[in-house]
Amino acid sequence: MISFRNDYSEGALPEIMQVLTETNLHQTVGYGLDEWCDKARAKIQDAIQCPGADVHFLVGGTQANQTCISAFLRSHEAVIGVDTAHINVHETGAIEATGHKVLAVAGKDGKVTASDIRQMVALHTDEHMVKPKMVYISDSTEIGTIYTLQELEEISACCRDLGLYLYLDGARLGSALTAEGNDITLPDLARLTDAFYIGGTKNGALFGEAVVLINPALKEDFRYLIKQHGGMLAKGRLLGIQFATLFTDDLFFRAARHANECAKKLKQGLVECGVTFMADSVTNQQFPIFTEEEIAKLAEHFMFERWANIDADHAVIRFCTSWATTEEQIGALIQAVKSL
Amino acid sequence: MISFRNDYSEGALPEIMQVLTETNLHQTVGYGLDEWCDKARAKIQDAIQCPGADVHFLVGGTQANQTCISAFLRSHEAVIGVDTAHINVHETGAIEATGHKVLAVAGKDGKVTASDIRQMVALHTDEHMVKPKMVYISDSTEIGTIYTLQELEEISACCRDLGLYLYLDGARLGSALTAEGNDITLPDLARLTDAFYIGGTKNGALFGEAVVLINPALKEDFRYLIKQHGGMLAKGRLLGIQFATLFTDDLFFRAARHANECAKKLKQGLVECGVTFMADSVTNQQFPIFTEEEIAKLAEHFMFERWANIDADHAVIRFCTSWATTEEQIGALIQAVKSL
Amino acid sequence: MISFRNDYSEGALPEIMQVLTETNLHQTVGYGLDEWCDKARAKIQDAIQCPGADVHFLVGGTQANQTCISAFLRSHEAVIGVDTAHINVHETGAIEATGHKVLAVAGKDGKVTASDIRQMVALHTDEHMVKPKMVYISDSTEIGTIYTLQELEEISACCRDLGLYLYLDGARLGSALTAEGNDITLPDLARLTDAFYIGGTKNGALFGEAVVLINPALKEDFRYLIKQHGGMLAKGRLLGIQFATLFTDDLFFRAARHANECAKKLKQGLVECGVTFMADSVTNQQFPIFTEEEIAKLAEHFMFERWANIDADHAVIRFCTSWATTEEQIGALIQAVKSL
Amino acid sequence: MISFRNDYSEGALPEIMQVLTETNLHQTVGYGLDEWCDKARAKIQDAIQCPGADVHFLVGGTQANQTCISAFLRSHEAVIGVDTAHINVHETGAIEATGHKVLAVAGKDGKVTASDIRQMVALHTDEHMVKPKMVYISDSTEIGTIYTLQELEEISACCRDLGLYLYLDGARLGSALTAEGNDITLPDLARLTDAFYIGGTKNGALFGEAVVLINPALKEDFRYLIKQHGGMLAKGRLLGIQFATLFTDDLFFRAARHANECAKKLKQGLVECGVTFMADSVTNQQFPIFTEEEIAKLAEHFMFERWANIDADHAVIRFCTSWATTEEQIGALIQAVKSL
Repeated sequence: MISFRNDYSEGALPEIMQVLTETNLHQTVGYGLDEWCDKARAKIQDAIQCPGADVHFLVGGTQANQTCISAFLRSHEAVIGVDTAHINVHETGAIEATGHKVLAVAGKDGKVTASDIRQMVALHTDEHMVKPKMVYISDSTEIGTIYTLQELEEISACCRDLGLYLYLDGARLGSALTAEGNDITLPDLARLTDAFYIGGTKNGALFGEAVVLINPALKEDFRYLIKQHGGMLAKGRLLGIQFATLFTDDLFFRAARHANECAKKLKQGLVECGVTFMADSVTNQQFPIFTEEEIAKLAEHFMFERWANIDADHAVIRFCTSWATTEEQIGALIQAVKSL
Repeated sequence: MISFRNDYSEGALPEIMQVLTETNLHQTVGYGLDEWCDKARAKIQDAIQCPGADVHFLVGGTQANQTCISAFLRSHEAVIGVDTAHINVHETGAIEATGHKVLAVAGKDGKVTASDIRQMVALHTDEHMVKPKMVYISDSTEIGTIYTLQELEEISACCRDLGLYLYLDGARLGSALTAEGNDITLPDLARLTDAFYIGGTKNGALFGEAVVLINPALKEDFRYLIKQHGGMLAKGRLLGIQFATLFTDDLFFRAARHANECAKKLKQGLVECGVTFMADSVTNQQFPIFTEEEIAKLAEHFMFERWANIDADHAVIRFCTSWATTEEQIGALIQAVKSL
Repeated sequence: MISFRNDYSEGALPEIMQVLTETNLHQTVGYGLDEWCDKARAKIQDAIQCPGADVHFLVGGTQANQTCISAFLRSHEAVIGVDTAHINVHETGAIEATGHKVLAVAGKDGKVTASDIRQMVALHTDEHMVKPKMVYISDSTEIGTIYTLQELEEISACCRDLGLYLYLDGARLGSALTAEGNDITLPDLARLTDAFYIGGTKNGALFGEAVVLINPALKEDFRYLIKQHGGMLAKGRLLGIQFATLFTDDLFFRAARHANECAKKLKQGLVECGVTFMADSVTNQQFPIFTEEEIAKLAEHFMFERWANIDADHAVIRFCTSWATTEEQIGALIQAVKSL
Repeated sequence: MISFRNDYSEGALPEIMQVLTETNLHQTVGYGLDEWCDKARAKIQDAIQCPGADVHFLVGGTQANQTCISAFLRSHEAVIGVDTAHINVHETGAIEATGHKVLAVAGKDGKVTASDIRQMVALHTDEHMVKPKMVYISDSTEIGTIYTLQELEEISACCRDLGLYLYLDGARLGSALTAEGNDITLPDLARLTDAFYIGGTKNGALFGEAVVLINPALKEDFRYLIKQHGGMLAKGRLLGIQFATLFTDDLFFRAARHANECAKKLKQGLVECGVTFMADSVTNQQFPIFTEEEIAKLAEHFMFERWANIDADHAVIRFCTSWATTEEQIGALIQAVKSL
């Protein structure tokens, strides 16, 4: 059985495992105040060309989103996101659990548009309604699409115009920034957003997300919020070691590029077999459409996620590639689809 | 510089690092549903002699406490704990952040007594006050003391009598259960509490706490709550691997016993030097009292935590030992105290 | 200037003011435990033919909705409502502020359908998403439409089938139950819902909503929740007096019937002038469409709410009638529309 | 049966009932934006000599406290109060329900001292603990004592020094400001606090508390918070009418003075009978100590609250006087005590 179920099926990049093992008996202080975290912070500040940014390391994506959004907003303020947004669907109401409404817009290709934002803000006119104060986007999106620099510039300008914070969920940021057609860079994110996070879990770390706070207004007391949400890892060094390693020798981008290349090969192979797709993804998630019979056959030898039903006979499934995906695995899957 | 600052200064037990490395490229499903987690669950059910218990793996202690307490209580219900309790002082209001009041009792030797519980419940007579519904204890306590089986039996009987849930924070449970004078076993906990957690972070894991739900009324939908609180680790296998390893060949207890033995040697050495202590700890945290001048000298070569001021000239500090503490480190510290 | 802006523009029904005045110096205990509240409770239990129902008196509708929903749900559970629902749009995120997601369905004519409910529940398959546990409907709806008994029976059966609580917001229940075409009675509500509230504020009380709890599972400790949400009125007698008076000599229904008759006359008058409507309301809210120029003219002599824009030149406005509306006021408004 | 149980046993001052009746059919806009509320706001700004203050009218005290505290604090910030504080004991955890810890200090005579505040802040040193950000005091206190101007000046200076907001709960402010020995004025409160509320419910209104926001940093979007907490009364005029009437012809102070004079007579009468008291109250709450037998006898003809047990044979009870208390009632009670 080969798994394309997600990009967190294996442990971590060998480079990371090696440093974790080498440093295992070093003594450090806890809670992210050690030298490894400092080192990782400096590397990230460098990479985003923003020496003044605050960088905090958290364990997971839902935790990062929940901590940031609840730290940034007052209780009557709401966050705008696309209807398929992770915070709107797949975090078990973690945002609402901290008191905030998620205002869902229809979006386009899984992406929020500046026009969506303007319309949503225009609808919220007085104190009988929540006050939109933040926009949540993710790159890549839930359906594998990516933002263009122009789209991001427009959203950013719109947010500044309307007094909204712009926050980018980068759970799969590596895959987005190394995707074909991408023209956004890490420094662009530091320039255009108020805060974002760089995802480690889905790009070769055992776990870990690096939250980057750009807007000075959002920095105050952030460590209190991490602690209160149960996100302050005692052995914080584990996060520092992983991000310092990811941001050494371009490892973060190399790992993501590999995942994308695997996805591209897979996509090409499937297209050649006549398979159609729910969305035109350029990243490491691919959403092909198969008949139920085909899905059942594939499931005999491969693991993947069932994404959505199309009709009684057809459904969308998701294949995820990662830093760990091999040529052989891709080859085997394409072969299996050919034989359907 | 040698650190006695805490029991999470190093990485993990070599046995754990080895299994993590060996299994690194195995593919598993995410979120704690993999075979490693199943294996760890079975080992823990065995160890506590309670096959019907639910076992969930979380990353950290604050997360475990917050998730459990908010899962168990309705919003007007409160939890009773000793005034020094971790949830009352050192979790940045994580319990209140989910809406619940912590009712603090003075306790004795860092421990809640059945009499404290009865008095607190008697004070809360109507709907203008919160409703006490849960008791939180930790073993070992914040000041290193441990409960006796008789104390635990009394508290448990009192809770059942009053309709309160009993929850035990086992962040340092290994140290407690292997301490000199301890007469409590894991099966006792399963018999006497409604829920508890077995601490991994402070006993040789990279991270991880195993939440054990005994009372069937507390089990429903617990995974929803884990997810909502940002505690569902994508690569859940990491927790399964660590706990399966800890509960193989008695590793969990061997690691704790080692920490206690180091603490005992240290304590004896200090007593011989005439040092006095804030509390009579039998576990891996020791709380000696020194003059400010002595503390300054020790700080030149050792790291430790400053615990509390006694007067202008004296303070309590804390020395923590762990699975990783060496004879040499203990020897060096005793030597340094002798030379003061 | 005559106001059709809402159904709470005046004080209270003269009958209510009279009893408040007469009883002003009587001494009673506080917090809803007085004899007036007991009397009102008994009258409501009678009217709904459900002697076992718990009846609690709250000050306002948002308070009633927030207290009920947060009392009934655990933190990962969500409430389904139509997208225009008061809790989804006009309560400043009061439901999310207590931690719960509102799952919005498109509905039909401002009403939730059983089919909406089934689809929403079918989408929520695992612990990565919130768990739908409750359905919120209001009668009359936000756009003045009413449920038929058959619709309510279907929704109720669907909720019982799926294990969902059914809650009905009766802010304008009087108007709904006395509307042309209505075939629902108060006893039907007690039979088909788990809880509902009978609105006083918009039907002639100074303020006050009577929350009725039918399902025994929802009754426990409800007074604690009222208090915690700041809803326990010190002089609770004020609520008891008002509801006892409303449920004496059919006053509740007489007041509502008057409001509906005024609305009907107004609607007929406008239809005769050729005015069209956004929705076919049979209750005391009417939603005519006018040009911007017409709206500006009407605004010189009448107050009303602007509801929604249709296009650059047209908008929907809302006229509300109430127990206090007079023939003269209706006449004046129709005359003004005729003269446009 | 005569009730001394509380100061909200009757309806409202006749002056208030009269204006409510006279204005009953006037049409106004809702939600506190009407001319009566404007008038009341202006009168209060005048009375406190602070034209820039924001004044909002809420229905009850728990609601006012909860709305203010949750509006002012970020989620990791805590409020300091005396252990007997209403928010700490008698609001069913309403503050914790919005996510904030109440840090209880022992105080003196029911009052917080500047020294308490400094000690509590000194204990909270890092992000593992909540951050004290606000001080809550009430005048008169829960046990009927009052602050002196000097005490209030000291607390205020201490708060400004430490960066804490100072908030005063004025549920019984009228009684405090008209008490023998009081040297604080309304303008002092505007000068020395960041926010406070003027209690109507316990001083002759049907209900209502006037929240006064002095510190500009606390004013933003406060109406959103009122609405979200279910505190925005539809017929907001009712609050405006009551406060405009209370602040006309000194009615607020006349009513409070009457209550205090009744309490003073009662106290003198009891002292002459040899009764002792739990606290030396100069306001409308008196806390005499009686034997259980005496209490049982008094309870045959009078209602009062049982406050606390002293020993097996003695308890403290509370007698409350109000604007509505009569000479005859006081006389009857003293006579009854004499006959014990």
